[in-house]
Amino acid sequence: MEKLNVGIVGLGRLGKIHAHHLAESIGAFHLYAACSVVDSELDYAKENLGVEKVYRDYGEMLADDAIDAVVLVTPSHQHCGQIIQGLEAGKHVFCEKPLGLELEEMLRVEKAVEEHPNQVFMLGFMRRYDESYMYAKELVDQGEIGDVTLIRCYGIDPNSGMESFIEFCKNSSSGGLFLDMAIHDIDLIRWFTGQEISKVWALGNNIAYPILDELGDTETGAALCKLENNAIGIMVAGRNAAHGYHVETEIIGTKGSLRIANLQEKNLVTILNEHGAVRPMSQNFPERFKGAFLNELTQFAKYINNNQKAPISVKDGIRATQAAIACGESMDSGELVSIEY
Amino acid sequence: MEKLNVGIVGLGRLGKIHAHHLAESIGAFHLYAACSVVDSELDYAKENLGVEKVYRDYGEMLADDAIDAVVLVTPSHQHCGQIIQGLEAGKHVFCEKPLGLELEEMLRVEKAVEEHPNQVFMLGFMRRYDESYMYAKELVDQGEIGDVTLIRCYGIDPNSGMESFIEFCKNSSSGGLFLDMAIHDIDLIRWFTGQEISKVWALGNNIAYPILDELGDTETGAALCKLENNAIGIMVAGRNAAHGYHVETEIIGTKGSLRIANLQEKNLVTILNEHGAVRPMSQNFPERFKGAFLNELTQFAKYINNNQKAPISVKDGIRATQAAIACGESMDSGELVSIEY
Amino acid sequence: MEKLNVGIVGLGRLGKIHAHHLAESIGAFHLYAACSVVDSELDYAKENLGVEKVYRDYGEMLADDAIDAVVLVTPSHQHCGQIIQGLEAGKHVFCEKPLGLELEEMLRVEKAVEEHPNQVFMLGFMRRYDESYMYAKELVDQGEIGDVTLIRCYGIDPNSGMESFIEFCKNSSSGGLFLDMAIHDIDLIRWFTGQEISKVWALGNNIAYPILDELGDTETGAALCKLENNAIGIMVAGRNAAHGYHVETEIIGTKGSLRIANLQEKNLVTILNEHGAVRPMSQNFPERFKGAFLNELTQFAKYINNNQKAPISVKDGIRATQAAIACGESMDSGELVSIEY
Amino acid sequence: MEKLNVGIVGLGRLGKIHAHHLAESIGAFHLYAACSVVDSELDYAKENLGVEKVYRDYGEMLADDAIDAVVLVTPSHQHCGQIIQGLEAGKHVFCEKPLGLELEEMLRVEKAVEEHPNQVFMLGFMRRYDESYMYAKELVDQGEIGDVTLIRCYGIDPNSGMESFIEFCKNSSSGGLFLDMAIHDIDLIRWFTGQEISKVWALGNNIAYPILDELGDTETGAALCKLENNAIGIMVAGRNAAHGYHVETEIIGTKGSLRIANLQEKNLVTILNEHGAVRPMSQNFPERFKGAFLNELTQFAKYINNNQKAPISVKDGIRATQAAIACGESMDSGELVSIEY
Repeated sequence: MEKLNVGIVGLGRLGKIHAHHLAESIGAFHLYAACSVVDSELDYAKENLGVEKVYRDYGEMLADDAIDAVVLVTPSHQHCGQIIQGLEAGKHVFCEKPLGLELEEMLRVEKAVEEHPNQVFMLGFMRRYDESYMYAKELVDQGEIGDVTLIRCYGIDPNSGMESFIEFCKNSSSGGLFLDMAIHDIDLIRWFTGQEISKVWALGNNIAYPILDELGDTETGAALCKLENNAIGIMVAGRNAAHGYHVETEIIGTKGSLRIANLQEKNLVTILNEHGAVRPMSQNFPERFKGAFLNELTQFAKYINNNQKAPISVKDGIRATQAAIACGESMDSGELVSIEY
Repeated sequence: MEKLNVGIVGLGRLGKIHAHHLAESIGAFHLYAACSVVDSELDYAKENLGVEKVYRDYGEMLADDAIDAVVLVTPSHQHCGQIIQGLEAGKHVFCEKPLGLELEEMLRVEKAVEEHPNQVFMLGFMRRYDESYMYAKELVDQGEIGDVTLIRCYGIDPNSGMESFIEFCKNSSSGGLFLDMAIHDIDLIRWFTGQEISKVWALGNNIAYPILDELGDTETGAALCKLENNAIGIMVAGRNAAHGYHVETEIIGTKGSLRIANLQEKNLVTILNEHGAVRPMSQNFPERFKGAFLNELTQFAKYINNNQKAPISVKDGIRATQAAIACGESMDSGELVSIEY
Repeated sequence: MEKLNVGIVGLGRLGKIHAHHLAESIGAFHLYAACSVVDSELDYAKENLGVEKVYRDYGEMLADDAIDAVVLVTPSHQHCGQIIQGLEAGKHVFCEKPLGLELEEMLRVEKAVEEHPNQVFMLGFMRRYDESYMYAKELVDQGEIGDVTLIRCYGIDPNSGMESFIEFCKNSSSGGLFLDMAIHDIDLIRWFTGQEISKVWALGNNIAYPILDELGDTETGAALCKLENNAIGIMVAGRNAAHGYHVETEIIGTKGSLRIANLQEKNLVTILNEHGAVRPMSQNFPERFKGAFLNELTQFAKYINNNQKAPISVKDGIRATQAAIACGESMDSGELVSIEY
Repeated sequence: MEKLNVGIVGLGRLGKIHAHHLAESIGAFHLYAACSVVDSELDYAKENLGVEKVYRDYGEMLADDAIDAVVLVTPSHQHCGQIIQGLEAGKHVFCEKPLGLELEEMLRVEKAVEEHPNQVFMLGFMRRYDESYMYAKELVDQGEIGDVTLIRCYGIDPNSGMESFIEFCKNSSSGGLFLDMAIHDIDLIRWFTGQEISKVWALGNNIAYPILDELGDTETGAALCKLENNAIGIMVAGRNAAHGYHVETEIIGTKGSLRIANLQEKNLVTILNEHGAVRPMSQNFPERFKGAFLNELTQFAKYINNNQKAPISVKDGIRATQAAIACGESMDSGELVSIEY
């Protein structure tokens, strides 16, 4: 099987992770090129990733016929434009979440994807490729827990990142707690229940870091979601977990329940010391979802090679963004918000 | 120390549990009398509890000067009247939850308690006397997790009781999911945060047992609660847990989190078999809270003997009932409900 | 049911625990008398336990016809004599482990028990009355794990007691690691397998506290035991657990395994903090086996009232002591030791 | 960095796993050739692994100058000869455990490795490359648990393989329980303690499958090991775990303990159903040690590219085999066996 030439676009923290996977651990890809507006990132690509070409301009990269696919790990507001550009240049496109920030641009992406049915487009909801989530999904699909009546999703960042987040907020916007953090959880709710969220109420507070009130962001929030079939969704999002990177999902069904990462065990070690029996926890998303990141791009290659559509569609990206925006509006207004699709 | 003569009122499932504790395991009490309108319960008391006196009429029992205290385990709508009667007869009074069903009668209880300052009144929020909840409360009070930002409470009955609950609903009312099930959780929210609930949105569904729609009750529900200081409360109440009696509480603070009964381990046994590593779960409230039931009445005796007020006040009973009613109203109307105290 | 008058003999740490249970929490008993050669213990009994009589002399206490039963919590070398004396005085006798230190005296007890068939004699192997061990035993007896092929028992004291243990050793003898600590585990091996231990090899070391070499005691030891049917027993005994009181048992069967207190969870609380997910552990035997201590004396009363034999026989005491002595001999000699019964 | 051309030798179950890793997931290697005496394995290599060359004769493969390294996944009795042959042909050599079956041949390997100091030789004790074991080793090396006083190792195969194992035994020899199963555990004991095993006593039984007595193999065994510094080693080896692939290690130190895979959680999912709270377990070694297998060969490439020696030496292989043989001798004779190195 010939390898697929892939170009990475954006080499920040997550961009580097994807790039190393493409260069070293996913045999179906050859990391051929890197694109970035940051010189040091291009230097990094040449020295550490062994790419053949580097580009400062995305359009120039797309003009390179040797490239089969691009992987976009760029700022959220650039996603929609870059996806469309990539598709029009005849490339397969993988894009990190979120799909976009506004409905209109996302609908344009939807149209572009439809117009290029022979190219794979895939969105980076990597949790769907995590072995624990896949295992849980299989159990749900097999009917092990019956019909889903309630799903609870936690996504809480470690407080080790709080100081730098506050600095970030002084000059930029995270998009708000729900768009920034809960979008993966919204995708999980939709994936596990097969239902859309129809109405939400969301709350937030900044009890540990009141400065976030001034900066217009939120430390801890929660949303109660009514799904179309009356099943219930609960989301907790936050930025201040003392114990590490807390991503947890519970699915309550009519015949049983599942918990994914009830505790986010880092590995299989238990430490017995003066504190008690201690299970170390995962500390950040690259640690927790290392396997999922590898797996999603491995699958991306398979979809390309097998002429398959990716199971994560543009619609998944649109609906998740819409629900996240609704949660943000509810938290801001204090009122119930209905979502019209 | 002379033993306190106590009379039990009501000898249903929980009444019998209290009665046996009073008769056999709490040395500070002598189970002197039992009162019930059910003959078989009085027979039971004579044969199995060794009481000296049995009464069909509560007033007659109260007229017995030998009695120091009464323990009320009667239907909820009788609580307020019986508490007031007991206090006026000079007895110490322990009453099972809920305090009452309507605000007016509960305010009369509040007045009666104030007018009898030398008699102990205590409400049966037994979870406060469970060793795990006490341990957690101490950690919270010591500041181990900082300030509480979010508290999540689950109270889900085992599905083994579902058939009989449906039969029950055909002729009676449970009071609704939140008043019936979540009132303990509301007490926990208030106890751990020191805050009142100011606004709620509640959802419910009957996906497994649609017949409950017709019968006007609810199988699975959830409420999102805004507390006065913007901390967040989440409650899940249900009647359909496959794995047993699911009472779980999580307290997220600015410096750490606590989980009480993250899994409701029945004991310290792990079974390794073809299913995996299996921890058996508690199956019902008498099993899970056996120690708490013993402990609360042991403490009731201490409060009497030491001339102390019980730490669970009438106000605790009133506020919990009010919040439970608000949750029910929200679930029924689909709207946000504010609570005025 | 008339209460049984009981006399407690010995009011050290465990004696006080038993005495309070008898006085306050086990309705079938009336703690009528206390006996001790230590004046402060007799004062304690009068002030805190409300006993009617105190005795400095065990013989005088036995002469008191009001006493139905005695509970012996005295130094090990006094057990056999006091049991025989108690039986001959017509009392029911409960005695703490170990039954004795030498075979000959234990055989005299066996004879005395046989000669007083209408009096209950019971040995304090309280683990058999712990709810987790009882639950496990029931599963084993039901065949849930098939036939036992291997049983592993840990009994490790918390290191918080190490300094005082070293002081103790300067003037006294603990009897050695296996007789002092592992005797409960030997009883569990015999109870769960129904087999006798036929051959052992034992090792010990004093890596943390070399001073114990000089004092003739042992910090950490282990024994491998061949059972009569070729099933395997493994024991670990120690005095230096950093995390608390570590009593753990694993039973491997042909169809599955059981673990009792795989981790010695103190309660149902999990703490999530900078260390990870922390389960606090039981810190000492009164905490871990509180329920078992209560339960064994409650059952002692039942055996008396029902004219039943206690299920823990003199033979259980003799065999456990013999096996513990064999382990000690093996550790000292470095050789295999066969046990003849 | 140029890729290293590697040839795989042996394409059984584990051989295929290594081959796929080399072909698809370890960028530093190019799987250039495969060698097997089984035609269907060579067909598999051509069709599924994309190798450039296939060989039926190991010597012919070694003559191919394009090959930099070989990975030996052949029957144990061929290991020593093939290692020496590979080294003499100038190749880097990775060999699966055990190093060999007899001391003499292993000493010849030792000499060959010494004579080829610029070629990497590495033995497949892959557990040392498992993330949990690496994490534990780091904690031990940092002194987190003080000095090791006791180490307990379990290696029990799932009973799902029992029928085929019995068939296998009818025509072949596994080498015996300890050489077949416990050799990894012996390596862990040596790695974590830095001590050699000086004396052992081992027991075994065939309670579930008495037929294994006739076939000369063992279902469940245990060994107690005296280490040179008096620390204690305990090993349990077996073939009959109902719950899956049970590899567990406990390291007790003077200041704390570690457990690696106290329970062999398959992933982060907990199932709550009528059985209780169920954690699914790993079912076999490819599942449990997938990451370790990937990691060890990734490191093998690094050692080659960096001109480093592999940290697992020939001596590690020799000592582990010697200790395993001693355990087998003890189990067969029923006597203590001392090990002279």
